[in-house]
Amino acid sequence: MATRSEVDYVSGRTRLFGIVGHPIAQVRSPEMITAEMTARGHDAVLVPMHVLPEDFATLVPQLLRMQNLGGLVFTIPYKARALALTSDLGAQARAVGAINALARRGDGGLRADIFDGVGCVEAFRRRGVGFAGRNVMLLGAGGAGSAIAVAIGFEKPRSLTIFDVDAARAASLASRVAAASPGIDVAAGAATISGMDILLNATPIGMLDDARLPIAIDALPRELIVFDAIVKPERTPLIDLAQRAGCTTIFGREMMHGQIARMVDFFFAD
Amino acid sequence: MATRSEVDYVSGRTRLFGIVGHPIAQVRSPEMITAEMTARGHDAVLVPMHVLPEDFATLVPQLLRMQNLGGLVFTIPYKARALALTSDLGAQARAVGAINALARRGDGGLRADIFDGVGCVEAFRRRGVGFAGRNVMLLGAGGAGSAIAVAIGFEKPRSLTIFDVDAARAASLASRVAAASPGIDVAAGAATISGMDILLNATPIGMLDDARLPIAIDALPRELIVFDAIVKPERTPLIDLAQRAGCTTIFGREMMHGQIARMVDFFFAD
Repeated sequence: MATRSEVDYVSGRTRLFGIVGHPIAQVRSPEMITAEMTARGHDAVLVPMHVLPEDFATLVPQLLRMQNLGGLVFTIPYKARALALTSDLGAQARAVGAINALARRGDGGLRADIFDGVGCVEAFRRRGVGFAGRNVMLLGAGGAGSAIAVAIGFEKPRSLTIFDVDAARAASLASRVAAASPGIDVAAGAATISGMDILLNATPIGMLDDARLPIAIDALPRELIVFDAIVKPERTPLIDLAQRAGCTTIFGREMMHGQIARMVDFFFAD
Repeated sequence: MATRSEVDYVSGRTRLFGIVGHPIAQVRSPEMITAEMTARGHDAVLVPMHVLPEDFATLVPQLLRMQNLGGLVFTIPYKARALALTSDLGAQARAVGAINALARRGDGGLRADIFDGVGCVEAFRRRGVGFAGRNVMLLGAGGAGSAIAVAIGFEKPRSLTIFDVDAARAASLASRVAAASPGIDVAAGAATISGMDILLNATPIGMLDDARLPIAIDALPRELIVFDAIVKPERTPLIDLAQRAGCTTIFGREMMHGQIARMVDFFFAD
């Protein structure tokens, strides 16, 4: 019974969610996660919440006292800091050392996990591609790379090789993946496609107008499956090269959709 | 360029507003104020924020630290407590001793005022009815009655008589109106329509299934202008009696719309 003087997408009964970041204008979660929640029939909205670094420690715990707040998403620069908000952490979050989603449980408690890597695995699953038994090359051991490495580790690949320009960072991530997924063959190493089944880019190289490739190659074998976590542009130089070679290409946008689906599962788990 | 997987009413650039209350499910500001803001071309949303009384003092100042928060609306039971959030108060708020809207100014400061009474005056204005020079009878000196009395006082009525079952409360309100609008004829007194031009009900009598009238009368003169602040039902026993007498009747819904228009002016004043 909405009239011209009322909108139909928010009311006093709407469950509130927020994305906390700094800056905030560029985030895509409000329009995308709200769409996923409403498509599933939830009366819910996810709004931007711009929190300054000097306010994070005092402001965010207070936000969580709002009784109709269902959960928060955390983005740059807060994924690691937000870990301290609850001790009820999922296995991915514990291994990565960061969270990007915090949900209020049915009993009022808070649980958190990280879904970047899960979103990547989900994107592959939707394409019918599994990581089990595959040789996997991951470029980039930063925030996105860490989450992706941990999630792939849980999928039991034959091997996972991690390259980063910062060799110590790659080695540290390899150790964390090994600790979280004992028995898998994971190591820091040089960027190569030799013997690899899957190549993933989790570096920022190729973003926006950056014409570089994240790995020094001239051609790709048709059998290689190529993923690029970059969302803008959709067609990065790496994706372009892979498409010209006839490779299966999986996009950052698909990882984002996979992640959103799994985060909404998490927000409404009980 | 919204797709099926995105909603078009919230993004990272959306300015955030909230209504703070306890309970919260019954509030109408989210759908109504959001509609008014978007109709004026603002990228903004007003969401419910359920704050418990024991959290108010610590939570609300932190909410105000959110950089993209444009303002807050306060409802039961917080209109008086919220007065302490800023010293930059409008004339109505100072006289009433309560606020219902807090806006972030262009320079980052906070200003507050109360719009319940202003909404009533605005509703009359839209009907071409002024209070100046009129004899006005107001029933009820509670929260709504206080705001209405103060707002009418600023309109220079010939006289304003305030009745409340609690005579001390009526007298106290009359004093506050007199202090805020020196020189007007305002007094607490018995409920009567004798000599009155305008009768306003700001008591809860007639709400929902309450079949009583807020004043002991059998008939109304056709010349009397009758207002009832009650929103549900629209047709209260008082409004019903007035309509049968052929009186001009002004509704609580019109006060609500008048208030919303003036609050949105206030939120986007600079």
